[in-house]
Amino acid sequence: MNISLLTIGDEICIGQIVNTNAAWMAEACAKEGWRVVAHSVVGDDLPQILSEFERLLSLTDIVLITGGLGPTHDDRTKTALLDYLHDSLRLHEPTLEHLKALFQRFGRELSERNAAQALLPASCTPLQNDKGTAAGMWFTLGKTSNEANAEAAEVHGEAGKRHAGKVLVSMPGVPHEMKHLMEERVIPRLRERAVGEEVMLYRTLMTTGIVESSLADLIGDVDAVLEGQELAFLPSASGVKLRITVTAAQRTNAEEMLNRIDERIRSLAGRYIYGVDGASYEALLGQKLREKGLTLAVAESCTGGLLGATLTNMRGSSAYFLGGVQCYSNEAKMSMVGVSPETLRQHGAVSQEVAMELAAGIQARFHADIGVSITGIAGPDGGTPEKPVGTIWVGICAKNQTPFAQKFSTGNDRATNRERAVMAAMQLVYKRVMEE
Amino acid sequence: MNISLLTIGDEICIGQIVNTNAAWMAEACAKEGWRVVAHSVVGDDLPQILSEFERLLSLTDIVLITGGLGPTHDDRTKTALLDYLHDSLRLHEPTLEHLKALFQRFGRELSERNAAQALLPASCTPLQNDKGTAAGMWFTLGKTSNEANAEAAEVHGEAGKRHAGKVLVSMPGVPHEMKHLMEERVIPRLRERAVGEEVMLYRTLMTTGIVESSLADLIGDVDAVLEGQELAFLPSASGVKLRITVTAAQRTNAEEMLNRIDERIRSLAGRYIYGVDGASYEALLGQKLREKGLTLAVAESCTGGLLGATLTNMRGSSAYFLGGVQCYSNEAKMSMVGVSPETLRQHGAVSQEVAMELAAGIQARFHADIGVSITGIAGPDGGTPEKPVGTIWVGICAKNQTPFAQKFSTGNDRATNRERAVMAAMQLVYKRVMEE
Repeated sequence: MNISLLTIGDEICIGQIVNTNAAWMAEACAKEGWRVVAHSVVGDDLPQILSEFERLLSLTDIVLITGGLGPTHDDRTKTALLDYLHDSLRLHEPTLEHLKALFQRFGRELSERNAAQALLPASCTPLQNDKGTAAGMWFTLGKTSNEANAEAAEVHGEAGKRHAGKVLVSMPGVPHEMKHLMEERVIPRLRERAVGEEVMLYRTLMTTGIVESSLADLIGDVDAVLEGQELAFLPSASGVKLRITVTAAQRTNAEEMLNRIDERIRSLAGRYIYGVDGASYEALLGQKLREKGLTLAVAESCTGGLLGATLTNMRGSSAYFLGGVQCYSNEAKMSMVGVSPETLRQHGAVSQEVAMELAAGIQARFHADIGVSITGIAGPDGGTPEKPVGTIWVGICAKNQTPFAQKFSTGNDRATNRERAVMAAMQLVYKRVMEE
Repeated sequence: MNISLLTIGDEICIGQIVNTNAAWMAEACAKEGWRVVAHSVVGDDLPQILSEFERLLSLTDIVLITGGLGPTHDDRTKTALLDYLHDSLRLHEPTLEHLKALFQRFGRELSERNAAQALLPASCTPLQNDKGTAAGMWFTLGKTSNEANAEAAEVHGEAGKRHAGKVLVSMPGVPHEMKHLMEERVIPRLRERAVGEEVMLYRTLMTTGIVESSLADLIGDVDAVLEGQELAFLPSASGVKLRITVTAAQRTNAEEMLNRIDERIRSLAGRYIYGVDGASYEALLGQKLREKGLTLAVAESCTGGLLGATLTNMRGSSAYFLGGVQCYSNEAKMSMVGVSPETLRQHGAVSQEVAMELAAGIQARFHADIGVSITGIAGPDGGTPEKPVGTIWVGICAKNQTPFAQKFSTGNDRATNRERAVMAAMQLVYKRVMEE
């Protein structure tokens, strides 16, 4: 089943907003085994929207549209649908009732402008939006809604004839409304439609600590591993990702193939694989800390809290994350973590010695099993010839043990340096945890 | 000057990567006054790439392509360009020299596969990539490169005739390489080409603390404000954005108009405007703290360091950010910030009282001018009927003053709750700073 995504809206077109909706929808479809073959973005421009309807319906079986459904006059999607499909509006009572209830809940009057959102094209199947005021609309080309008139004559004029049986779905662009409609209304209907269709599934193995060419050498003869399916090497900042793509007539066959290929790759390169399908490193680390019953405290200088913020991205992180100190100033390194003034004076804040004292101090003050520290020059200012921007020291100290610190040199970009420092600190903790 | 963006790559198409390149490029073009009218994403599929070349060249004067230029066989962009433009490869000596120097710098041998990246279509103007191995390629349709054979016969077959004078630019998809090529090579060349063209400029005024309808009431008669230009209201989590769009024959006229409209809107709603064009709230807050010579310390429970990480996104934040404590556990709230066990027992960690003690304690321990605290239930677990998920207390305490705390109720999503808590804390500090 081929799918294309159409995003409508000036904000996306001129770059004010990143099109995260398209990535989310594409991933949701890929998980189901459906092939997303194109994304398209256009502004609130009627002729261009119409021409994209025609092009994308010619290209794919399903066109998923987001955006342009707000109550303001800028929004053109409904007008475009009526025009393209030779349809007209009718009042959809359940949607009006839903809007009334929604506004009552917020203690607000239902304005005329908002009430007009219950006027929907006659031929669509309305998809109730529990999270907002704009209903989703499902059109099967050449057919009226399957709620009423299922046996009625064909509709949608020439477009209905050219693309009979294909599907056009319109959803609002607000991310959580789109996700709700996709999960509760659109994907279940698409599943019914996809029965018997070929399935294409992906799995991505996340590796870290090994470069692309060495990983390729480890895996060796790919043909023996792949059963004629595909493997892509995708380098990224945190490590190389291995994407397996399999195509099969049945979902179960595809899954079995994925599992076999996954297993073969793990038998060759398993120790570099830390998760699948975009799993975060903090999830892996959290799982290991929990398994071993260990607790962690952090002392962060140049990252200002980013390591703690990353670790607590995970629900339930209080089981292993005790907390830490954002020791951005030298004063805080001394008074809050116990670094000695002498060490700071002699070696400077960005040094092996301070990283070790921070790790030992934070471990002791939080009574944690492991203390970890970051001190570095994130930039763009503050570099010197001996300690250029991008110099990062990461320290670690386990209970009753000698602290240890390691130096990393990254680049000139502040945000990247901070992200890499956080990744390096998590990797150091992971290594230590696996030795316990 | 109309521009379209074409992104080539399976990772983007199937949703493994968000298309941040397109947003960055669209924004860069918008700043120049050029109109981006379409984005398109296709996988590494030759026929589809060819058909997008044709469609986008028919639609716009300029097509900017990213992706598909790596050294592996998955990458199809160069093949597609040769095919579409009836061109063939030739060795581009300066690119080969550049590749040799690049590999020498990394202490690596130039492999045959990488050396092949110096083979470029004969009709292009190569754009040297200082950040990587894939050169950019500039094609003026129907013309050979302007380096050599400027007077040569027309090229590019039928496509060259259909789209004579239009421009196709191909760049690698690695974000920092694309940005380098755009900034150093592509935009300067496009500027030459855009001389005399109509200019469309945007400015976005960022507001906070006021809802869309009240803002519209404040601004009142838009026609009097806008001189026939456009204004869009864009609601977002942090506040409503006001986007002004002006079109003029000359850049200077457009800028003057923008300034006049900006001034009129500020005279009506200025106190809600905190910045322009995507300015971050932490930048505004940092600037105000610096102006007033005030320092800040943070105590973070459910955000685990995200407030400090956000404040230290800004270079030079050490001028006002002293640090803080990530008091994720109750033990840390007591031992590291000085919350009394009695208060914790009586009111629980998520309470007005604890938020106030945290703010006062962190202010005192860091000798800061202002202490700010966050304690809440980020979710998805940990909610109770009295304190549901999304209950957040933000506390503040200025030197020698009585602490104060405010409650916010957000939704069920952990990441959103944490972001909103950080925004609420920054707003509370901002308000306090403006009272100094």
